[in-house]
Amino acid sequence: MLSIKIMIMKKIFAEALGTFALVFVVMTAVGSGSAITPWLAGLTLGLFVYFVGHISGTHINPAVTIGAWSIGKIHMIDAIQYIVAQIIGALVAMVLVGGIMPGAIVGMIGDITVNNASVLIFIAEALGMFFFAFGIASVVYGKTPTNFSGLVIGLSLTLGIFVAAAMGSLGALNPAVALGLGSFNIAYIIGPIIGSVLGMQAYRALMTK
Amino acid sequence: MLSIKIMIMKKIFAEALGTFALVFVVMTAVGSGSAITPWLAGLTLGLFVYFVGHISGTHINPAVTIGAWSIGKIHMIDAIQYIVAQIIGALVAMVLVGGIMPGAIVGMIGDITVNNASVLIFIAEALGMFFFAFGIASVVYGKTPTNFSGLVIGLSLTLGIFVAAAMGSLGALNPAVALGLGSFNIAYIIGPIIGSVLGMQAYRALMTK
Amino acid sequence: MLSIKIMIMKKIFAEALGTFALVFVVMTAVGSGSAITPWLAGLTLGLFVYFVGHISGTHINPAVTIGAWSIGKIHMIDAIQYIVAQIIGALVAMVLVGGIMPGAIVGMIGDITVNNASVLIFIAEALGMFFFAFGIASVVYGKTPTNFSGLVIGLSLTLGIFVAAAMGSLGALNPAVALGLGSFNIAYIIGPIIGSVLGMQAYRALMTK
Amino acid sequence: MLSIKIMIMKKIFAEALGTFALVFVVMTAVGSGSAITPWLAGLTLGLFVYFVGHISGTHINPAVTIGAWSIGKIHMIDAIQYIVAQIIGALVAMVLVGGIMPGAIVGMIGDITVNNASVLIFIAEALGMFFFAFGIASVVYGKTPTNFSGLVIGLSLTLGIFVAAAMGSLGALNPAVALGLGSFNIAYIIGPIIGSVLGMQAYRALMTK
Repeated sequence: MLSIKIMIMKKIFAEALGTFALVFVVMTAVGSGSAITPWLAGLTLGLFVYFVGHISGTHINPAVTIGAWSIGKIHMIDAIQYIVAQIIGALVAMVLVGGIMPGAIVGMIGDITVNNASVLIFIAEALGMFFFAFGIASVVYGKTPTNFSGLVIGLSLTLGIFVAAAMGSLGALNPAVALGLGSFNIAYIIGPIIGSVLGMQAYRALMTK
Repeated sequence: MLSIKIMIMKKIFAEALGTFALVFVVMTAVGSGSAITPWLAGLTLGLFVYFVGHISGTHINPAVTIGAWSIGKIHMIDAIQYIVAQIIGALVAMVLVGGIMPGAIVGMIGDITVNNASVLIFIAEALGMFFFAFGIASVVYGKTPTNFSGLVIGLSLTLGIFVAAAMGSLGALNPAVALGLGSFNIAYIIGPIIGSVLGMQAYRALMTK
Repeated sequence: MLSIKIMIMKKIFAEALGTFALVFVVMTAVGSGSAITPWLAGLTLGLFVYFVGHISGTHINPAVTIGAWSIGKIHMIDAIQYIVAQIIGALVAMVLVGGIMPGAIVGMIGDITVNNASVLIFIAEALGMFFFAFGIASVVYGKTPTNFSGLVIGLSLTLGIFVAAAMGSLGALNPAVALGLGSFNIAYIIGPIIGSVLGMQAYRALMTK
Repeated sequence: MLSIKIMIMKKIFAEALGTFALVFVVMTAVGSGSAITPWLAGLTLGLFVYFVGHISGTHINPAVTIGAWSIGKIHMIDAIQYIVAQIIGALVAMVLVGGIMPGAIVGMIGDITVNNASVLIFIAEALGMFFFAFGIASVVYGKTPTNFSGLVIGLSLTLGIFVAAAMGSLGALNPAVALGLGSFNIAYIIGPIIGSVLGMQAYRALMTK
């Protein structure tokens, strides 16, 4: 019983730490005008897949957690714990980076529910997330070589960000990252969730006979 | 019988989706003046090799399909279905990207059969495709480690694009991509097909005793 | 007895050579204003993990050696030998690069103990090193696929450098590299050591039941 | 007897083709002022390790062939054939690229034995080649995972080029590439050969008890 509680705490810690790292890296990259933000996001996610994948599965993204729940890969109670951990990790990164690099918070905090929201951004986030989630599902369903899990998932995020950014969004593909960037609005929350569910469902449909 | 039809539909869906993604990424990269287009094209192809390679083989390129047919790796009837799927995927990407980023259509649509056509571009596309097809064949004939299939095929495309671009072509190496870019002419159609057939035949000749 | 002495000498040679290469690459990258220093550092470390990992474990970093000692992966006597070898490698690189590219020595040699030292740099080096050491530990504890050891350790260094640099430090994450850069001061020595010990201890705590 | 002759011809073809590709890519990258020449060289070499490594071992570099001969991995008669094939491949690339991009021939052809020759360039080429050859030897002696052969050898070349270029040479690390660039002089011929022999001998010494 105690060991179960410890295992849950380890999962929560892994999700919070990984989300902190991802949000920190994306915020500081955006804040310093980096041209390689999509690669840095993919690098961070890919490494954490190797670091803590065996513990929590390395979602570090509420949209991934909800997508995984939609294909029956995580229970709802665990999913809620994961999302809470992800939000905590994102908030810690937001406070830390906001303190040293205010420009990293792109959106207006005081105007947090409406900035940058548009139908095109919604579609951009959903389409980019579709490909990212498609890649995650290829690992979850064992079609990508196990050793390559981090490489493929990380680079799928990179691909998804380029797709979304080409259509005009920030390419967050992650409500926790959008929170850190001060763009926690309907397009950046619902867009990735819908893309994630559709991408994982599409991949599952391709798998089943 | 039904399951065969479903399998065919899955292959067609995989080819259409992958070609859509590749054409979308290349068009938006070219349209935004990206300096890393060859890497983004390789990234997209390499990931789709992992995503849907077990379903369709991930050609997502009519020149690859014709090259694979030339070495007996696909039946003509399947090849035709693949090419139709690839064209559909490319057209959907062309309409979508053309709507949001008109500059991504480099060639003149009204002048679709002649623009940018020259002997040098023909040679450039054939030579770049030769190396790309050589790399595909190294995977098809099992000389590259299986786990590395996506990495090697994706990076072979990157290499081929650099070779072709150095000689002055767009480095499409793919009639479906050329279609999206509005450069669906003789140099961009026949060049890659000849390069693909020669590359795969050359690799097969190196293999056989 | 003789063979033991030879084995020790090989380890020392491997550590000195690897540290020389890493310090040489980082110094010349910094000195020429390279935009890809974090990737070059990761490349060098990752390759040496493959080259001499079976001989010395490829620490080539006093902070890594002390972190490895803190989790019981190296004896103190060996650790001291490693650190001496690393300092020798760094000094040779410093003399060589300093001769051909004086600008590579960023800090003031005459003022070597105090330049650039601040609490923020200390925190930056510790936080970046935490993630780097976390990645090393994922390999040491066998959670990352063995074949990927160099890739994951090298890229963990790249990630750690980006994290540290975002907070304003040079992103040395290695007292031997800081020595070469002429920034051998308290922040660049103690910061990485604390980050290394915390990162490895945190990973070990996640592993044990 | 016939099959032996065919096998020899395949090796020679593989070496000529690979050297052609490598020289073509480096010449066009240098000629167009590319900032990523070291990565493109590594990409090309790494892919050819996968493509034709099982046929010829993918030397595509006279200095590598001589280094391999120095550690007994190739017979002298084969080595001479390899070098002839490499020179042919380089000359074809030189003629082709020289025709479309004259600026790719950096050195003066008419002054081929003396241009750019200096002691520093000699040392630069030898030191860069030392690390490159060290990496090749780690694969030859089976210390790097087999699947990673192309990745490690290609990136070792990238590392070696950065090291040599930091000291002021072109970073050819390959007399065949130097020939294409019009810099076929003593520093670019003897430098890499000495570095290759020393690197492979050093690695062998680390291996043996």
